[in-house]
Parts: sequence; C-alpha cells; structure tokens
Amino acid sequence: MKGIQIERVQAMIEQLADYGRNADGSITRPSYGPAYMAAQDWLAEVMGQAGMEVTRDAVGNLTGTYAGQEQALPAVMTGSHLDTVPNGGRLDGALGIVAAIECVRSWQEAGWRPLRPVKVLATIEEEGSVFGLGCFGARAMAGEFAGSSPDDLQDKHGRRLSEFLSDQGLPPSALVDAVIDSSRYHSFLELHIEQGEELDLKQKPFALVTDIVGIDRHWITLSGQANHAGTTRMDRRRDALVAAACLIQQVYEAAIASNGGYVATIGTLTVSPGATNVIPGVVKLRVETRAADNGRLEAAHTHLAALLEAVGRRYGVKGVISKRHTTPAMQLPEGVLQELRLAVAAAGFPPAEEMPSWAGHDAKILAEHIPSGMIFVPSIKGISHAREEETYWEAAAQGIEVLNQALKRLACQRETLGTGGK
Amino acid sequence: MKGIQIERVQAMIEQLADYGRNADGSITRPSYGPAYMAAQDWLAEVMGQAGMEVTRDAVGNLTGTYAGQEQALPAVMTGSHLDTVPNGGRLDGALGIVAAIECVRSWQEAGWRPLRPVKVLATIEEEGSVFGLGCFGARAMAGEFAGSSPDDLQDKHGRRLSEFLSDQGLPPSALVDAVIDSSRYHSFLELHIEQGEELDLKQKPFALVTDIVGIDRHWITLSGQANHAGTTRMDRRRDALVAAACLIQQVYEAAIASNGGYVATIGTLTVSPGATNVIPGVVKLRVETRAADNGRLEAAHTHLAALLEAVGRRYGVKGVISKRHTTPAMQLPEGVLQELRLAVAAAGFPPAEEMPSWAGHDAKILAEHIPSGMIFVPSIKGISHAREEETYWEAAAQGIEVLNQALKRLACQRETLGTGGK
Repeated sequence: MKGIQIERVQAMIEQLADYGRNADGSITRPSYGPAYMAAQDWLAEVMGQAGMEVTRDAVGNLTGTYAGQEQALPAVMTGSHLDTVPNGGRLDGALGIVAAIECVRSWQEAGWRPLRPVKVLATIEEEGSVFGLGCFGARAMAGEFAGSSPDDLQDKHGRRLSEFLSDQGLPPSALVDAVIDSSRYHSFLELHIEQGEELDLKQKPFALVTDIVGIDRHWITLSGQANHAGTTRMDRRRDALVAAACLIQQVYEAAIASNGGYVATIGTLTVSPGATNVIPGVVKLRVETRAADNGRLEAAHTHLAALLEAVGRRYGVKGVISKRHTTPAMQLPEGVLQELRLAVAAAGFPPAEEMPSWAGHDAKILAEHIPSGMIFVPSIKGISHAREEETYWEAAAQGIEVLNQALKRLACQRETLGTGGK
Repeated sequence: MKGIQIERVQAMIEQLADYGRNADGSITRPSYGPAYMAAQDWLAEVMGQAGMEVTRDAVGNLTGTYAGQEQALPAVMTGSHLDTVPNGGRLDGALGIVAAIECVRSWQEAGWRPLRPVKVLATIEEEGSVFGLGCFGARAMAGEFAGSSPDDLQDKHGRRLSEFLSDQGLPPSALVDAVIDSSRYHSFLELHIEQGEELDLKQKPFALVTDIVGIDRHWITLSGQANHAGTTRMDRRRDALVAAACLIQQVYEAAIASNGGYVATIGTLTVSPGATNVIPGVVKLRVETRAADNGRLEAAHTHLAALLEAVGRRYGVKGVISKRHTTPAMQLPEGVLQELRLAVAAAGFPPAEEMPSWAGHDAKILAEHIPSGMIFVPSIKGISHAREEETYWEAAAQGIEVLNQALKRLACQRETLGTGGK
C-alpha cells in the first residue's frame, strides 16, 4: 500500500486550476459559471475513477460517495468548496477537495473499505462572490433557506438564483430539496489552507482547529456639518471625516493592544457630500471585529461604542451604530478534535499545533448539525485570495496524512459523536 | 434723493429666489437650465427698468450698461454670479447683482449720471455645478478658453458646452467671442456674502477684501496590502486606511495649530477594494489647503509631504502625491482698496474691517485683467450653499451703501488704476 501520494494532489490542483485560470495566473471560478461547471464535470470524473458514486444536489453541491461495509450507517463526510474569489488562488477550497479524493483513491488502490460510507463534498458558492452571502451551498444543506424562494437571492446584476438553477437544469424547489438529514451523517472534516501566517511564522506543518472565530459587524454613521472648505475656520468645523479618522486610529490601537485577542478592520468608508472643497458632513463606515471568544467580541463592541461616543463629543459629531450583525464564535466539538489528535499520533507526528480559525468556513455552518473538525496546512506568508497563494507541499502532505488517518478512524467507528463544544 | 432702499434689495432677492426654489426653500438654479434662463430674462427686464441697456455675451453672461457722460471712457463694472449650487441659498451671487442694480436705480431716480459708463454684470456658471470648473463665465471673459473648443467642456452626463450654447441660440464661436478687451474697463467691484463666520463673530457690518486666498489641491494615493480581515494578524497588516486616518488627523492638527494661518480639508476619500472583510489596500484622497499667503501655502505643502512620508514609514504603506494643482493667492490692488476705504468714509462709517476672502470669486479671475475690489457683508453663522443662508439686512444695507459710494467715486474718476498688489 503506497498511501497518500502528494504528487497526485499537486497534479489535481494544477488540473483544477485550468478551470478559470486568468492570464496573470490567478483563478476566477465563480459558482454556476462555465469554468465552474466544467470543473465540476472534471471532478465528477475523477471521483468516479476513485470508485465513488457521484451525485449533485439541488443547488449544485457535488458529492462522491465511497461505499462502506455497512451502507445503512450514517456517513463520514469531508471536503471543501470548489468556487474561488475573483482573481483568487489555486488552493483555497480546492485543496480540501482533492486531498479528500486522494485519501479515497489510496483506499481504493489498497482494496480497503471503511465500515461507514465516506462522502467527498465539493460545495458551491462558499466565497459568496455571486450572491454576496458566504457558505451559500453549505447553508442550503443546513436548511437555512428552506423558507426562502430562489427568487429572493440575486447577483449584483439582478439575476436571480432561480435563473441560475434553471440554466443548470436544477429544479426551482432547490432550496428545500438541498436540505440534508443530519442524522444520516456521522461527522465532517475539512482540510484547508490557513490563509493566515501563524503556521508559516512558527514553521509548523499543520494545525488542528479548535474554534471558528465570531464575526461582529457594525454599520456606523458619523454626522457632522458639511460646510465651505475655505470660509469655515478650523476651530468652527464639525468634520465627520476627521472624527472618523480619530475613531479608525483608536479602533486600530485597541486591537493592536489586545495582542492577538481580537482583530478589527474598517474595510469600507464613504464620505458625503464628497467634494474637494466641502467639509465632510457624513461619513459611513463598517467596523468588523473577530475573536475566538464571544466575551472578547462583546468587550470589543462595548469599547467601540465608548470610542464612538468620545470621538463624537470631541469633534461635535454625532456617531451612531445603525446596525450590528454578529455571528458568534464556535468551538468545534471536543469529540472530533480528540479523534484528530489520535490521528496525528497514528500518523507518527508529534502533537499538533492547535489554533482558532480567523476565517469562516463551510465547517462552521455544518458543525451546527454534524460533529465537525478542521485541519489547516500552511499558507506561505499568509497570502490567500491572490495568485501568490501557495503552501509548503511537504507540510501539506503531513496535513493530508492526518486527514487520511482521521477519516479512517471515524469511518470505522460504531459510536456517534456529539456536536457540542468543549 | 432717497438713495439705496434695502427693502427693494430684499424684494428683488425674493423675486430672484422664485427661479429655482425647491420645496424645502433651498434654491437650485444651474447655469443654462430653464430656471436660470427665466431668471436671466427677469433680470434683463429689471435692468431695463433701471435705465440700463442689456446685452448677453456669447457664453451667457448678462450685462446691463448705464450710460456715462463720456461713453468712450473705459467702464466701471460691478456684479456677481446668477447661478447657484444645488440646494443653495438666496444670497450667494444674487446679492451682488441686485445690490448693483439698486445702486444704478437710485442714480436713475435722482437723475444722476456718472462720467464713465457703469456695467452691472451677472456671470454664468461661477459655481461650476454644470461643467465642474469654477468661474466659467468670468474665465471665458478673461480669455482662458480662447484656445479651447466648446466640445471640450462637458457636464457629468457627457453633454457638451456646444449643445448648451446651441440650445440658447448662442454661436459655437462663443469661447472666442466672449473674450473682453480689458482696456475698455476701468475697474470691477463685487459685493458678496462672506460665507464665513468672521463678520458675524466680530459683529461687523461689512469688510473690505484685501486678498483672495490661494488654493492648493493634492491628489494622494496610499498603497498598502489588501488582505483577509480575519486571518491577517494586527501586527502584520499594511492597512492603507489606518495610514490615511493618521494622515488626516495630523493634517487637521497642523492646520488647527496654524491658528488661522491656513485651512486644510480632506473632502474626498475612497477605499479599495472596499469590502467589509478585506483590509484596505489602496486609499485615494484629496487634501486642499488654502492660505492668503503663498509662502504659507508652500510651507503647508512641504509639511504635508513630510507627514505622508512619516505615515508611510510607520504603517508600511507607500504614500504619493500623484497630482498637485495650485491657484496662488492674490492681493487685490491697493488702488481699488484705497478707493473703497474712501467710500467707507464718504458713507460716514468708521474704518472698515479688512480681511482675506477664503473662497474663490469671479473678482479673482477678473482682477488679473481689471483693477478689482470686493466688499463682504455678513453670513449669519457663516452658513452658505444651504437654504439657511442669511445676512443681517441692516449690515448688508451699509455694505451696499459702500458699494454705491465706491461706484460713484470710480465712475467719476478720470485717471486709471493699477491691477498690481500692494
């Protein structure tokens, strides 16, 4: 038994990258587009060659099932997403799919069959590039849209999900049809590039993921007084942008001072009226904070509100948080994490690095319904969502071997696992 | 001889405000629009009633000429602009026109005739609301576009000046035809609301303008590294918006510290890629500084470049001034200012406040060619370009009396004046 062959993983990554490859080497493979559908066809063929039976669900998630000895047992599932951001890299999502296929292929070659069926999942629209909503495919499986109409979701050109589905010969009842029966699933594992720089900086080959961070988004409006940029004395101004600049600085300094406790980003900002010779009257911006600890997220929120109040007083500007959207942090279940630790030992590696995921993933959505775990492999320099996205392949091979060992353990387990956190 | 009647000025202001008045009481009277053309017709009628011969030049500036005893002598000109910003006030521009008409009307009633002809000018497109270029009408008179085609200027919908002109029955040769022979003009006076708060704060009825500030505009780009807002550690970020925020704060603090020496405004700022979950990679902003002293403007520019350099080093961001556009400050000629001081004394008022204009005006354009002066009357709370734009009418009446006395002095003067500064 030769086991996992990293060269085959690398070859599949290159083949998949041909679907949507741009002239500059980056990959643009939006869900439902021609490159995406061709990639899906290619993937179905590869899955078939590895002994899997391939199905596509009602919204376009692709699944290859490798039969178990007892087909009636709930399945072990693994995989990641097939779509990319515009001008993304070759590994984000793709690596988790082809790594899973390589595991199954190695079993097929060895004539090994697990107790439970093992399903390799390639989700659609995780990046939210088309409909603006992350993890769309996984959310559909989780039943989050069961009460919605496929006319409700639209891309930025106003094209509705129902039209995308009809183009693919998928039924309008997709959002109901795609919902899975979670009792038919034993566990879910997702291997993914870290997208951060921790593993690279620490020179670690892989990590087990303990938590997926919570994300707290704040829509903020600062209202001062638009006025003439020449005739209004500096000491008589109520400049919304100067106030916003002070807020941005202080939010940044506080996040730096948390020393890794949380991150904070202001990614969007608009100025009104937005003329060179008019003092900004209104600034709208969004503050996003992320922490693995929900208490930390709440403390950052309270601090933000206090900063906004203080900045408003200082500059004679009214600051309000007009909307807040919080996705709480989630601890991945201890049962799956323990299985992953045992898989590390079974592969002959020293105890693994354990860390939170600072990005959202399909595993977070599925973890609400199926006991789930994640393995990270390095992102060189932490670069992701860009053509420079790369990993250390010797390290990735170790991470894939951990996935392999963990899948084999889980797929031979008779008992069920819990979805609860530690 | 009853002289200036402020009630008539107020009545004319109200009548003019009917052209372009919005439901909220603000005025929108863009150049060449229906409200503008109707206002121009009304103005021509009022000028005619005050004994003036009315002409419209090739770009749409309106002039009423009150004949002098010696028609061959170069004329004294006075007036302001007839257009408004969107949702502007009743006084900006309009007051300088109707004040001039009231002066002439008082002469007509008294049967008084000056030595020189006196022209009342209502310029078009001073606000630049249509073509995006301030003082268009005055610039056309000054010959700044004599080498341009009326196809070169477009509004934001891509509609060309040539189309605007053809709609008004004006010739395509307008930009050449509108150029004045400056030797035919003795002097120019413009009465205008201050638009700032100085006169209101000091409770002064009017001011004589000594200088028109220079305006220095900087197009700045800050380039950091766009990256994932979750997986990128705070201490590994190169956030262009955090760097921009630091720059904005420091530019503001420096202008505050100048204690009235100059003003600085960042009125526009855009963030790329501009997504909630992506660290800003590029920020573009414009810094405008204004000072009555060109040395001050240059020092502020040098300081800005140094701040940009320091901010860039601190945040690992590259800051460049990609474009700079400077309109130097201008001293209004001492000869005209001296005539205005004498007019103040002739009207029986104590010596006037003297101050720079922090806004640009048609007078600045014309001052390059014709000896020019300006009189400011108060803006209550410094509000302008808004429906709340208002003045103290007893104060304005004194300012108009100064205009009246100055016009009479200038129009009876045999000698010419210089355009040079002090």
